[in-house]
Amino acid sequence: MRKEIRLSGAGGQGMILAGIILAEASLFDPELYVVQTQSYGPESRGGASRAEVIFSNEPIDYPKVVKADILVCLTEESLEKYGEEVTDEGVVIADDSFGGGYYHPERANFYSLPIITTAREEIGLEVTANMVALGVVDSFLPEIDSSCLERAIERRVPQGTEEKNLAAFQAGQELLANVIE
Amino acid sequence: MRKEIRLSGAGGQGMILAGIILAEASLFDPELYVVQTQSYGPESRGGASRAEVIFSNEPIDYPKVVKADILVCLTEESLEKYGEEVTDEGVVIADDSFGGGYYHPERANFYSLPIITTAREEIGLEVTANMVALGVVDSFLPEIDSSCLERAIERRVPQGTEEKNLAAFQAGQELLANVIE
Repeated sequence: MRKEIRLSGAGGQGMILAGIILAEASLFDPELYVVQTQSYGPESRGGASRAEVIFSNEPIDYPKVVKADILVCLTEESLEKYGEEVTDEGVVIADDSFGGGYYHPERANFYSLPIITTAREEIGLEVTANMVALGVVDSFLPEIDSSCLERAIERRVPQGTEEKNLAAFQAGQELLANVIE
Repeated sequence: MRKEIRLSGAGGQGMILAGIILAEASLFDPELYVVQTQSYGPESRGGASRAEVIFSNEPIDYPKVVKADILVCLTEESLEKYGEEVTDEGVVIADDSFGGGYYHPERANFYSLPIITTAREEIGLEVTANMVALGVVDSFLPEIDSSCLERAIERRVPQGTEEKNLAAFQAGQELLANVIE
């Protein structure tokens, strides 16, 4: 088992924190190896942001995402950049603010969801879009228990914002449940 | 130019945040490529924590530390674990709470410094030991401007703690200046 997850968006959308929380949630599973990475380079100066998490039940020799099993894109730019680097059965989760319907109509596992809108309107705090996204990702990660993700969120978000962030996470879980029903 | 930095210690000592700040400081240099990684695995369940940062002026193909150019160890366990994975000219910065004098007496660039004591007694906040350590690291990183590190600290530490963390960073810079004089 090796699972590669890439979280991408604009700087300030909290993709790095989401990656750290995802990685830390794995700490509750004593058998799992996890590597969590962020890269910065001349190509990301425009404000793009990307975090990667790799889970495996063996030590991880190659710690870079090659083809994502799960890709999150909060901006159109990130979907254009990473949309092709996904496995055939991989899941692509994109914010619906940029349509996205044009993307891979043949891809079964493409979800265009109101992630940012949910954060802004339901939670009242747009910066929690990263936690809404994590809630969506959670549904595709049977390896990680939801309660472990919730404990990692409580540990890592700024003090005093735990409740809003947990609510955002749960809103993300529901977002997907509504679409799939 | 490729420079590998490993920050190690116990969980809760803020090595991951220090790694992120170090990586983000590089954003102010438009030419630099940076990868920042943390790994979790069965071997780290005891509460060990490790973050790695690699800087390069070319795209980084292999994003893992092989031999560190700079190694920070806030615990004796981490010095024992990573102390040998350092280049010949590499710098080892260890907290002085565990002696460390026994380690590599032939190594010219070994610094045993009161990092945790400085955080606790001078700043009044032991959790700022990670920023004291960053202040020490800064002196060995001519590639990164101190003011960029300070701006990254302000961006990333919890709101309201900026001043204490910046003071800790500056105390770290002085710590080394005092030793070298």
